[in-house]
Amino acid sequence: MTDAPTYEPPKVWTWNKESGGRFASINRPIAGPTHEKELPVGKHPLQLYSLATPNGQKVTIMLEELLALGHSGAEYDAWLIKIDGNQFGSGFVGVNPNSKIPALMDRSGPEPIRVFESGSILLYLAEKFGALLPTDRKTRTESLNWLFWQMGSAPYLGGGFGHFYAYAPTKIEYAIDRFAMEVKRQLDVLDRRLAEVEYLSGGDYSIADIAVWPWYGGFVKGLLYGGGEFLSVHEYKNVQRWTDQIAKRPAVKRGRIVNRISGDPASQLHERHDASDFETKTQDKIGEAAS
Amino acid sequence: MTDAPTYEPPKVWTWNKESGGRFASINRPIAGPTHEKELPVGKHPLQLYSLATPNGQKVTIMLEELLALGHSGAEYDAWLIKIDGNQFGSGFVGVNPNSKIPALMDRSGPEPIRVFESGSILLYLAEKFGALLPTDRKTRTESLNWLFWQMGSAPYLGGGFGHFYAYAPTKIEYAIDRFAMEVKRQLDVLDRRLAEVEYLSGGDYSIADIAVWPWYGGFVKGLLYGGGEFLSVHEYKNVQRWTDQIAKRPAVKRGRIVNRISGDPASQLHERHDASDFETKTQDKIGEAAS
Repeated sequence: MTDAPTYEPPKVWTWNKESGGRFASINRPIAGPTHEKELPVGKHPLQLYSLATPNGQKVTIMLEELLALGHSGAEYDAWLIKIDGNQFGSGFVGVNPNSKIPALMDRSGPEPIRVFESGSILLYLAEKFGALLPTDRKTRTESLNWLFWQMGSAPYLGGGFGHFYAYAPTKIEYAIDRFAMEVKRQLDVLDRRLAEVEYLSGGDYSIADIAVWPWYGGFVKGLLYGGGEFLSVHEYKNVQRWTDQIAKRPAVKRGRIVNRISGDPASQLHERHDASDFETKTQDKIGEAAS
Repeated sequence: MTDAPTYEPPKVWTWNKESGGRFASINRPIAGPTHEKELPVGKHPLQLYSLATPNGQKVTIMLEELLALGHSGAEYDAWLIKIDGNQFGSGFVGVNPNSKIPALMDRSGPEPIRVFESGSILLYLAEKFGALLPTDRKTRTESLNWLFWQMGSAPYLGGGFGHFYAYAPTKIEYAIDRFAMEVKRQLDVLDRRLAEVEYLSGGDYSIADIAVWPWYGGFVKGLLYGGGEFLSVHEYKNVQRWTDQIAKRPAVKRGRIVNRISGDPASQLHERHDASDFETKTQDKIGEAAS
């Protein structure tokens, strides 16, 4: 242990605006909008407000998969929401009171429906179009088990390991060690599952894979937090196999670059309003660009 | 900052079995079973393997609510799984490869169906019985939005704030501050929602409330991690109102004490196999016993 055990928490916590590391300026202890700002609305039934983080990629991959299956009702406008304060605009908070991307408005019906939390969006779209979620009870349940597993597990990968390994202003051994151990356990859970089945549901490719892939697939390819060597990601051979397999899907290649604002400029599609928007872009292979 | 910035992570992380704080003995960087152990199976269609943590309480509350609504198919055996190693038994890992409680086996059909992740279990039961999830698309979506919100948010309350505030071997100011800020933000998200609506879906009481209540309701009543005063939980008046309202439900009073092994012995029902098992127990009010 190299962490000095000298701190005693006060009786009542108060907001020190100096703390918070790389994201100090956008982390707040209060919710709600900070300013008035309406959201743009395009021509399609589905309006997505997002950024190509792993959670954002889930939804753009899902929408591209639905379009590839012929569901024209899944046409969408993808608007860029930079998380440097835009997530606190009044319009965005109206769609997602939790101020996180991705957020979706379905304007296809008489009354708009807001959908937030990436897992909720995946389930909503799967049910709306009757696609990418098995229909027999057993396999459907297994797909949802893994969808919820991803939602409850990735905070340890992102907000835990990623934050303390890559973003916090100092390296805190105890915190890095705690989350390193948990992420390795999670990777082993996945690796054992993917030793037995091709896709997580045990049946076809489904929203479970779409949810898990941008996080754990990205991580085992060294794309997130630079922590690949540290956590020996090459050991998870079944996760590697599954990641490579999904990366080859054309819809995944398209979905990954929507709302991307980092990496190779040729593989950044800041906004997506039409299928032709991809034509000028490089649909990079996983590993070629960090997102 | 009182945390010594002297640590440099090695190139490759290795497992130091000495670290890990209060839960060092049960945290592992590998998954899978550590020993052979079959699970017991009782007489009812649903077999629950759990413990009365907030995630465990979600499911026992749900089952008691379904029984109160007259769904006799929701009769269940609740078996106690102490998380001191029992979660690594081969039988339990077969039901939940992630080795976490709660885990459910539905043995009502020709083939058993395993359901894991508390959010997945709530959704499974709501769909199986057609209850506690609104049926119109807009309110149903809102209920699922908040269900997924809980799944992605509570790791910051439990694995983040709770761990560093209450369980870690030293008090690390940066980590406590980071998670304190996030938990306060989450409480404010809930408080603003509950200023507008009686229940989270905007319609009737639903699985969204059942998922959020044991975590955030428990926390604002000072039952989790002793962090209530530190985070000024009295400020969240709408969360307090909603917590009190739900605490009065007879099914909630019953569900909270199933698989409980701490607090007042009179309000611990270690296992539940029949409705009459509650008769000798005190159905305590929230605040009377920590769980």
